[in-house]
Amino acid sequence: MSLVVQKYGGTSVGDAERIRAVADHVARTRRRGDDVVVVVSAMGKTTDDLLRLANDVSAVQPPRELDMLLTAGERMSMALLVMALADQGIDAVSFTGSQAGIITDTSHTRARILEVKGDRLRTALHEGRVPVVAGFQGVSTEHDVTTLGRGGSDTTAVALAAALGADACEIYTDVSGVFSADPRIVPEARRLPRVSFDEMLDIAASGGRVLALRSVEFARNHHVPLHVRSSFTWEPGTWVVEEDAAMEQAIVTAVTHDTSEAKVTVVGVPDRPGIAARLFRALADRMVNVDTIVQNMSQHGTTDISFTVPRVDLDAALDVTRTLAPDIGAGEVLADTDVAKVSLIGAGMRSHPGVSATMFETLAKAGINIEMISTSSIRISCVVRAERVEEAVRLLHTAFELDTV
Amino acid sequence: MSLVVQKYGGTSVGDAERIRAVADHVARTRRRGDDVVVVVSAMGKTTDDLLRLANDVSAVQPPRELDMLLTAGERMSMALLVMALADQGIDAVSFTGSQAGIITDTSHTRARILEVKGDRLRTALHEGRVPVVAGFQGVSTEHDVTTLGRGGSDTTAVALAAALGADACEIYTDVSGVFSADPRIVPEARRLPRVSFDEMLDIAASGGRVLALRSVEFARNHHVPLHVRSSFTWEPGTWVVEEDAAMEQAIVTAVTHDTSEAKVTVVGVPDRPGIAARLFRALADRMVNVDTIVQNMSQHGTTDISFTVPRVDLDAALDVTRTLAPDIGAGEVLADTDVAKVSLIGAGMRSHPGVSATMFETLAKAGINIEMISTSSIRISCVVRAERVEEAVRLLHTAFELDTV
Repeated sequence: MSLVVQKYGGTSVGDAERIRAVADHVARTRRRGDDVVVVVSAMGKTTDDLLRLANDVSAVQPPRELDMLLTAGERMSMALLVMALADQGIDAVSFTGSQAGIITDTSHTRARILEVKGDRLRTALHEGRVPVVAGFQGVSTEHDVTTLGRGGSDTTAVALAAALGADACEIYTDVSGVFSADPRIVPEARRLPRVSFDEMLDIAASGGRVLALRSVEFARNHHVPLHVRSSFTWEPGTWVVEEDAAMEQAIVTAVTHDTSEAKVTVVGVPDRPGIAARLFRALADRMVNVDTIVQNMSQHGTTDISFTVPRVDLDAALDVTRTLAPDIGAGEVLADTDVAKVSLIGAGMRSHPGVSATMFETLAKAGINIEMISTSSIRISCVVRAERVEEAVRLLHTAFELDTV
Repeated sequence: MSLVVQKYGGTSVGDAERIRAVADHVARTRRRGDDVVVVVSAMGKTTDDLLRLANDVSAVQPPRELDMLLTAGERMSMALLVMALADQGIDAVSFTGSQAGIITDTSHTRARILEVKGDRLRTALHEGRVPVVAGFQGVSTEHDVTTLGRGGSDTTAVALAAALGADACEIYTDVSGVFSADPRIVPEARRLPRVSFDEMLDIAASGGRVLALRSVEFARNHHVPLHVRSSFTWEPGTWVVEEDAAMEQAIVTAVTHDTSEAKVTVVGVPDRPGIAARLFRALADRMVNVDTIVQNMSQHGTTDISFTVPRVDLDAALDVTRTLAPDIGAGEVLADTDVAKVSLIGAGMRSHPGVSATMFETLAKAGINIEMISTSSIRISCVVRAERVEEAVRLLHTAFELDTV
């Protein structure tokens, strides 16, 4: 008998019929003899509806109240799922983040989990019941309701799996796993049966939307095997596990792309120590997530610094940068929202140094200009014009022999 | 400076515009210099929508989960109201029933309040903030979320007013106060500026829908003056206060009616001590709320017992009664859903014994047959055919000179 945490996303519990289908699957798992802890997101578009309502009501939205509002969503889906389980003869019981003992810091709308107590979950499991836990939410050290921000329900599931010593954490979603590229762009994309945590981290960080970066980090740090699969087909999906020697090391595992970022360029930055530090400290203080950073060669004692940020953070980034520019003796600040990033990810790259050359050649042959480059030990990313990015993904997918035969 | 608890019902916070109107009124109260604690219900039809969803999902609805589901409603409205208040520059903060320290027993869907701690509310008030509290909900001694059943938000408001020593509890609703009769039936009905707790209890118990019986009882027991008023006109409404010698004692204050009950008759009940006790104990055990009870004259050692119950409890009442009838040697059990009750309420009745005679004469003159009669010191109720009840209300309103001139 093993213990499995199953997390169901918003589309998986999108309506009454979907909730009953999830209950049926949980019931099967239970009857197979496994213990189950279920984590649910809010139903379908509930969160969007609540945010729209908030915008209708007020221009001012205190973060604490936004959290109070949004956490209503999981409350509904979890209570409904317990009812559907009761209908199947499964004894289940719902728990809010607070009741499950998910203790967070006080950063409303983007709280970090400090501790998972889980006492009531252990008691319920011991009594042979199925705990159904609200994803995305916790309770702060100040006893206020908090939410965990983007990908919060995945993080809840992984944190519970770690705290309860679960054998696996199954992430049910509307796609059937992690693919070698976005199948909407590359029809030949293959579902990957297994990827390593490191690869998954780079896939998530470079535009693969299946799992939130943060939940993968948490799973890696706590050695929780993840299984990403579809709640529509119920087929086996992609396992995200620790890398081991026996794992087949593809040179390139996946081609990802990201169209959600914008490029900021600060022109004529004095080439002196400490200038870049001031700039990126100021951005960090405004909670702007800077991704790729490129500093061009110094000319006549000044340099241009370019970096990418999520488009939602662009206004904040420009505000910070334009305020700081005169102070640090820099010139104008340019924004470019017409960029996209294409990345290659593969643990095998570590031992195959020719990958970047092949990537650049492939793009050059198609006349796709590379504007920024960044690399890690298992990833190479290029920023290109947004209108060329899908073509770039397809070309690279073929060039690295990822197409299904 | 005084402290006032303001409770806003579902229609008062029915949409974004209504929520902004409520925020505006709370802000005015605050700027006038008073401290305010706000209690809100779920928005408009939210509760009905959630119940429909539950029915779509499952035939089995564990009460604990129903409470978990329904309490999402107030969570939304209170967070939205705090946002709207923030927009008006008012520093407010929302509290769930649990956070407000409303401790209940473990009877899910109809919990009783055991204690109101209110520590976080006192702290918020001390800091000059406006606490906005979820009505209808609490937390049980087992740390589970509970709801207080029908009229629960009114009860929350009164309980908070009592616990915090508020000077008044304002109940905002979609009518402008308590009327001498239902204005939809009697266009000449007058709004009552003042009624006593005892009168209000009888008005609520006999069909006046403005305030839940339970909240009036709570207010009377804890000496909390109530002010029932409209959140659409914001005019002064009806004060419900302790009876005092100076109060003008109208003989009849109001004519109420109730079409929500059904009549059950148990035929041929042996006229022996203890039989009625067994019957009504069995009904109480099934949580059937029995209202009027009439036992006819005994004939040949048997008697007929008739009683009224809420129509929603009729199936349960018939089940209990029909199961018990053979045991107690009774004959058949008849159900009649085509009845209604008309009542006169007035503290002045105590000193005016002729009221019932006038009532019976008025109904007799119009050919309206009286099927059951019950009285208290300040109320007389008659059960009549349902199709005659509106006429009865109008006739009695005129007969007792309640029509506006």
